[in-house]
Order: sequence, then C-alpha cells, then structure tokens
Amino acid sequence: MKIAIIGAGAIGKLLATYYAQQHEVIMVVRREEQARAIMNNGITKLTPTQCVNYLVQATTTLPKADIYFVTVKFYHLMALQPLLQQVTTTLVFLQNGLAHQSFAQQFSCEVLVGTLTVGAETKNDTTVYERGAGTMKLSAPQQHIIWQLTSEALPISYVADVNEVLWQKAMLNSLINPLTALLDLPNGELITNTHAFHLLKTIYEELITAFPDKKHLVGFEDVVQLCHNTAMNTSSMRADFLARRPSELSTIVGAILQEALNQQQVLPTLHTLYYALLAIEERRASE
Amino acid sequence: MKIAIIGAGAIGKLLATYYAQQHEVIMVVRREEQARAIMNNGITKLTPTQCVNYLVQATTTLPKADIYFVTVKFYHLMALQPLLQQVTTTLVFLQNGLAHQSFAQQFSCEVLVGTLTVGAETKNDTTVYERGAGTMKLSAPQQHIIWQLTSEALPISYVADVNEVLWQKAMLNSLINPLTALLDLPNGELITNTHAFHLLKTIYEELITAFPDKKHLVGFEDVVQLCHNTAMNTSSMRADFLARRPSELSTIVGAILQEALNQQQVLPTLHTLYYALLAIEERRASE
Repeated sequence: MKIAIIGAGAIGKLLATYYAQQHEVIMVVRREEQARAIMNNGITKLTPTQCVNYLVQATTTLPKADIYFVTVKFYHLMALQPLLQQVTTTLVFLQNGLAHQSFAQQFSCEVLVGTLTVGAETKNDTTVYERGAGTMKLSAPQQHIIWQLTSEALPISYVADVNEVLWQKAMLNSLINPLTALLDLPNGELITNTHAFHLLKTIYEELITAFPDKKHLVGFEDVVQLCHNTAMNTSSMRADFLARRPSELSTIVGAILQEALNQQQVLPTLHTLYYALLAIEERRASE
Repeated sequence: MKIAIIGAGAIGKLLATYYAQQHEVIMVVRREEQARAIMNNGITKLTPTQCVNYLVQATTTLPKADIYFVTVKFYHLMALQPLLQQVTTTLVFLQNGLAHQSFAQQFSCEVLVGTLTVGAETKNDTTVYERGAGTMKLSAPQQHIIWQLTSEALPISYVADVNEVLWQKAMLNSLINPLTALLDLPNGELITNTHAFHLLKTIYEELITAFPDKKHLVGFEDVVQLCHNTAMNTSSMRADFLARRPSELSTIVGAILQEALNQQQVLPTLHTLYYALLAIEERRASE
C-alpha cells in the first residue's frame, strides 16, 4: 500500500517507522531541508533498548497515495487546506484533542478521525524516541483498507464513538500537559510532588463537575496510572515549552475551556494554568 | 535614641540608612559574617541616582535599645522568640501580611505593629537598593518616642486601624507577588502582558468576592497604579524565587487563602498559583 504521512513531527516519524518495512511510505513535509534529510538518512527510531533505521521517502508536494495520515498540530492545519483538498482517496486525521473535528468535516474525500496512544518525542529532523507501545483508535468501516495496517507494533482498534476517544484524550492531555509544562516536571512527578498532585486532583474534579456526562471516560485512577506508566516522559507540551516552540495549549486546553464556557461552566484551575502559560509565551515573544 | 534593627534583609538595611545619621543604630543579625561585614563596611544604599554609605553597628546578640524593629520574614520569627522575650522596651513588628499578628501578641513588653510601603531589594550583605519613597504606617500612641523617628526620608503616619493596613498590604502582595514570581515578570508587565493582566483581574475579583468588607481597602485602579509606579521592580517573592530562597508565599498568600477558607470561601486562581509555586519549590528541594 502507498501511505502518505503529512507532517514529520514525533507522531509522523513514529508512524513512518511502523509502516516502512511492509508498505511504501512517503512523508510530506514543509521544509525542503527536512525532506532531503529524510531522503538521505531515513527515519531513526530510538527506544529504551534499541536504535533502528528505516528507509522512507519524503517530499514537499502532495504525492499519490492510497491513504493519507494527517499528523500535524492544529495550528498548522489551515496552511495545509489547499494541499488536503487535492486528496481523492482517504484522509486520516490523527489528533490530540477536540479541535481538528470541525476542520476535518470540510473535505469531500473520505475522512477518518482517530488518535494514537503512544509516547513519542522528536530528537531531530530524522530521529524519534518511542516510549512504550500504543494503539491507534479509529472508527473506520469494517471493509476499509486501513485494517491492513494493523500490526503487533501498532494495533488498530475499532471504536464505536471516536468522539468519546477524543474527549478522553483531551481530558487526559488537559490534566497532564499544562501542569507538566508550567511546573517543568516529568509526568511521574505529578503524582509524587504533593503540591502538583493536589492541583492534578483539583483539575480532575473541575472537569468532572463541568462535564458529568464524560465521567465514565476518565477515572482519577486512570490519570494516576498514566502518570505512573509514563513517569519519565516529558509531555509534548512541556517539550514544546522547553524548546520555546508553539504548543498545543490553545487546541487542547483552550478547546476544553471553550466547551466548558459553552455550557456556562468554569474550570478555574485549568483556566489559571492556561493563562499563566499564555502569559509566559507572551513574555517570551516580547523578549 | 538607640535603635536596634532585628534582621538585615532589604527592609532592615533600608531602615538602618534612614536612622544612621541622627541616631545610634545597631543591627541584630544571625550570621557572624554579616555582622562583621556591616561593622567593616556600614550599609550602602543605592537609588536610581546615588550611592551613599552609612556607618552602622552590628551584633548577633541582643543589645540594649530604646526601640527594637523586627524586620525578619515570618518563617524566621519562631527562632527569634527567645531573643525577643528579653526585650523590655518596645518591639515594632514591621510586616508584609497578616501572619505576624498572633505571634506579636505573646510579648509582655510594649508591641507596635506596622508596615513599610517602600520598594527595596537586597544586593548583598551590606547593600540595599531603594526604589521610590515610602512611609511607615503604625498605630502608635501619640506620646510615643517613635514619633521622634519620623523624617522626610521616611515619614511615619498614624493609622487608626493597623489591621486594615495589613489587609491592604496582604491583598496587594497577593495580587502582585505570586503572579510575578510564577511568570517571572517585573511588576509593570502585569498590566502590559495581556494574559497576566487577565489573571491579575481575576484574582482581584476573587478577593473582592471573598472579602466584600475589604473592598474599600484596595480598588482595582490602585493595583494598576501600583504596577505602573513600580513597573521595573522585581517583587520580593520573584526575587526570592529567582534566588531560590524561601519566600513569603505561605505567610502572605497562604494566610489570605486560610482567611478565605475560614469563611467558606475559595479563591481558585490564587489557590492555583499558590500550589504551583509550592510545587516548584518542592521540585527544587528534591533536585
């Protein structure tokens, strides 16, 4: 199968390594420099125990493909619109929160929406660090070619209501990302640092109070377990914040705050973290 | 008059410079090294336009004096208890918030409580930077010797209800200190950074909602004016935080949160900033 992966951040690169051996993978990137680097070096995946290199193609224009994975962050989507409108096969939006949803509706080709539960960190243009295994959750028709892409390394699992999965992910991200970014903590310290834990618990209670119909999606014990399982991980938002890159703050936390506002609910702790991070970004931009 | 100043931080040093020319000033400090440095070098006061040196005595034991100013931070008070109990004349507690109040009640000598509205930063053991003029606010009996200490450099003004002044200061400190420390901003950027300003306003509204009877003490325009007047200043909490010293977080912000709790009120934004700063202190302590 010919697979195009749009975006070569942590998730895009990781996805390429899962498919490179069995399929023809071509990465679609913005910078010529990164395209050349991938053509020359392939993609290297580091795990705690090994380092493997995968041969991958790369381009800055839209290739023909059987399926296109969109792995860019929300704030890069608008610039991709003209490119994505050329797609006539299948677009798969892999997203971290709720914000892509309305964007994804506009295309006339087939659109799938899903999410990846896997820890990945970009090391450089052609190297990605994978922490722990994960799955791709999708609500795809049973006869769809995407089922050929399921593998031991990245099982694809069916979800009846992808919106629930996105909510679940958005809630978990809102709990872990802003706190780890603001306090500069690895995920695990959210449960060992007593004051961070207090804030984690407060945000959880605020979320459940504001969205009682979402309570079954995330129990507080799931949050604790996730922090425990990813104890040494740097959350994507903390990584972005440390590297002074734009983060998914608005698309993850902003989207949740907006959903709450739509229902006349406030999430004061999350709101404070959100504005504190925005204030620091604003300070940095003026420096 | 013989004046003992207990504590040679920013406020203690500044006070010494106001009285050194007209009175006999002796500073009471914890470290022998600082006592020697003050004996050898005096106290140097820097202002935006000049640099003046003042001859001052220093000791690590309790001297005889007509009046004792206590200028240490709250978390150093307990260690001072045995020393302060030897005082038979007058103890003047100069404080930044509400927390000293109950501590000050225990002494059998005469106790005055007050506060200083002046910006000061410690540069080293014998140097202090003064930003802008201020006053000492005290509720002292009219015949008291302390009225001899009023001067153009530091006027002493009478306040009928010192508790109101302490509340006013505690509220202003709670608005400015934790935000500037967490966001690493000079005071002025709390009104120019749009996201910080949003948080400042939110905290103000929370305080006024929780303590409606204190509304007359601080208007939001006073907060804006103070940020404007001290635009380039580093708040004491930000300075402590940058220097990784213990800050007055618990005694200023913690005391306000406790007062709110006593009245079944929550201040969720201030509460979040408080725990975020505690979490960062906890992280640093474990590093």
